[in-house]
Amino acid sequence: MNFSSQAAVMNFLNEVADEFPSAISLAAGRPTDRFFGRLNTGVLLDALSGYERHAAGGQDSLEVRARLLQYGRTAGMITDLVAQQLRMDEGVAASSDRLLITSGCQEALALCLPALCPDPTDVVLVCNPTYVGVTGAAQASRVPVFPIPNTRPDIVDGIEQSLYELHQSGRQARALYLIPNFDNPTGRVIDESQRRAILAICARLRIVVLEDNPYGMFRYEGQAVPPMAALDEAGCVIYLSTFSKTLAPAVRIGAATLPKTLFGDPAGSRALWQDLVQRKSFVTVNTSQINQAIVGGLLLDQNGSLQQWIQPTLAWYRSNRDAMLSQLAAVFEPVSNSIRWNRPAGGFFLNVDLPFRFDAEAVRECATNYGVIVMPMSFFALDNSQDQRIRLSFSAVNPEQIRIGLASLAQYVGQRMGQELPVLESVSAGS
Amino acid sequence: MNFSSQAAVMNFLNEVADEFPSAISLAAGRPTDRFFGRLNTGVLLDALSGYERHAAGGQDSLEVRARLLQYGRTAGMITDLVAQQLRMDEGVAASSDRLLITSGCQEALALCLPALCPDPTDVVLVCNPTYVGVTGAAQASRVPVFPIPNTRPDIVDGIEQSLYELHQSGRQARALYLIPNFDNPTGRVIDESQRRAILAICARLRIVVLEDNPYGMFRYEGQAVPPMAALDEAGCVIYLSTFSKTLAPAVRIGAATLPKTLFGDPAGSRALWQDLVQRKSFVTVNTSQINQAIVGGLLLDQNGSLQQWIQPTLAWYRSNRDAMLSQLAAVFEPVSNSIRWNRPAGGFFLNVDLPFRFDAEAVRECATNYGVIVMPMSFFALDNSQDQRIRLSFSAVNPEQIRIGLASLAQYVGQRMGQELPVLESVSAGS
Repeated sequence: MNFSSQAAVMNFLNEVADEFPSAISLAAGRPTDRFFGRLNTGVLLDALSGYERHAAGGQDSLEVRARLLQYGRTAGMITDLVAQQLRMDEGVAASSDRLLITSGCQEALALCLPALCPDPTDVVLVCNPTYVGVTGAAQASRVPVFPIPNTRPDIVDGIEQSLYELHQSGRQARALYLIPNFDNPTGRVIDESQRRAILAICARLRIVVLEDNPYGMFRYEGQAVPPMAALDEAGCVIYLSTFSKTLAPAVRIGAATLPKTLFGDPAGSRALWQDLVQRKSFVTVNTSQINQAIVGGLLLDQNGSLQQWIQPTLAWYRSNRDAMLSQLAAVFEPVSNSIRWNRPAGGFFLNVDLPFRFDAEAVRECATNYGVIVMPMSFFALDNSQDQRIRLSFSAVNPEQIRIGLASLAQYVGQRMGQELPVLESVSAGS
Repeated sequence: MNFSSQAAVMNFLNEVADEFPSAISLAAGRPTDRFFGRLNTGVLLDALSGYERHAAGGQDSLEVRARLLQYGRTAGMITDLVAQQLRMDEGVAASSDRLLITSGCQEALALCLPALCPDPTDVVLVCNPTYVGVTGAAQASRVPVFPIPNTRPDIVDGIEQSLYELHQSGRQARALYLIPNFDNPTGRVIDESQRRAILAICARLRIVVLEDNPYGMFRYEGQAVPPMAALDEAGCVIYLSTFSKTLAPAVRIGAATLPKTLFGDPAGSRALWQDLVQRKSFVTVNTSQINQAIVGGLLLDQNGSLQQWIQPTLAWYRSNRDAMLSQLAAVFEPVSNSIRWNRPAGGFFLNVDLPFRFDAEAVRECATNYGVIVMPMSFFALDNSQDQRIRLSFSAVNPEQIRIGLASLAQYVGQRMGQELPVLESVSAGS
């Protein structure tokens, strides 16, 4: 898939959503709005003022205000508070002097890819399927992507196969993009032994892992696996983080945390950090200090950690996931031999394998005649391996919408399979 | 100058400023902090609430809040208000559907350059010297820059000479970056007849003008010249604008306004807009809607125009410019044959021609021994034509600092010229 076709599919989905505003969207991967009332203007004001008092520390508050409204440090103003949150909440040994605040995590990706892959023979390895933001950023900055096949059960095997193919063609993997926790779009978690094996390969071949962890704090069951950045002894992981899911997308604050050394070399890590800072100065100059102060103030108010803050959201997502799993089991019970799905232990997404091709045409038919919008996995794929699979999101809907949406989807699936599935809920197009 | 050396000089200046915090900086081109008290937290809150009420228009305000805190439209939420402000304040026939809100104007540049120059033989024409943000953005996105010589009195001649040289070498100019009003770093204004001549050339050769106008509203004398976007009948001007100078840098809101047609083709302009929107989605997803709401609320409060809002700032900058011009005349009176400067009719900058080379070493010596920091013009140059010239900023200082800073600079200049200049103010290093 090329740059414009990726953008085209996202446009297509937005258009479908606009055209059928009453259709239930199981396609949108945004966080729930349900708890945004906690971020009313009064709270935003308190956060801003709270950060100002903290930053003033006895100084003239007018001077702090002036500093806040001016151009500011390119690497960011709240690196210490963000580093503390990463240490407390995500177990990453982040340090303020190796951290870069970005205008959303996407900017971190857009900066890292061309910095890590300067030569035409350099490539970034990505899972196939993967998040469209990484392939889009790569292609916008003319960095070639190379897929890791997902046909093997073990991702490490897939990485080794890709590296072999690259080597044969005279190209070099310089970076490896991964969402190890509750992957978008697959929902899968990479276990600790695979994480260690990947790190060993990357250390040996000097490949930088771009570990993107937007969903890590949203685990609904089981034990957390340590982030690759926490397991990284060789100095090969850049940890990408965001406040879009924990606080709200509109704060547009992300961060890239560099390792202490780059493959053992502290000066190498410092030079890479400086390169990223310089690149950022030519893209967004510096991240809005108003937004940084809001996030900083909220972190101060929460004593540095967002664990308490996310509890209501976490509980909500867990019950949404459970509603989705039980409704999938109910509506697809008669065809359980030909339709399968995974049970994600966290995050926003799961995948359903269908016995037929699900394409853009199918999206439109589902929206038009069944009042439900779902995401074809082919939109995330670099080949045709995902053509019979869909991604369902349970983050931006409620249990009732999940029940109705999946009952509607089942009607469509039954029609495609030439098999009438029982109607479990009263369903009408556009409901 | 290459990417890393540009970044290196900016770093160097920041380091000097950090090392000599009490030195007077005539190098910093940021807007004055003096009126930032008008943007206290209460005012920011009112702006946010005011925009929310406007956007709600009878709707449930919780829904507006949710929309505000979510991911949002990539092209921006306040395109209508920004288009209105551009029509009212800058005479540009902007329209909401051809406008893209960016995370600061720098992002607009970073998006436009690779979009306009996709092929390796494509180049962007820039003045020599020029703003480092354009050469930095070009080099970060691997777009070659080609200088317009500034040795001829007429910029049109320079453009034609550059186009001839490009043609000889088989390369194509796809874009031309200009700051027609009170240029950074030179302070010059391109007059209306030259603007029309440039537009005729660009229309003929299908070169897109990137018209950057951060200083246009800060004119201290004389008649405003219409923006090139207002003179553009052929459809070749993208107008770049920012709220960093009118409101505050921390809002990080800029905009790119596309022409109605691209070289006569409405579909071409639409396709370029869509390409820029897609590229933005892979860099910053969308511009913070908190910041957009703040700017939107302030625009609503000001009935759409910032003319009244900027009056105190405008008066302050004018008196700073006058203080700088009269102090230059006073301190350099004894050497007026060998030292010259221009009288800018607006903006933040003027240039001083010196009878000796002024380099990084000179910056350090001025800071260390004379307590004043100035900007070598060589930092903005693509060749050695600017080696004996400095840029002085009068935007972020007060008249007293201007008087002391220039008296100190004169002592340094006298020492370099082997000629003692009269001490007009009591000056001590680090004052």
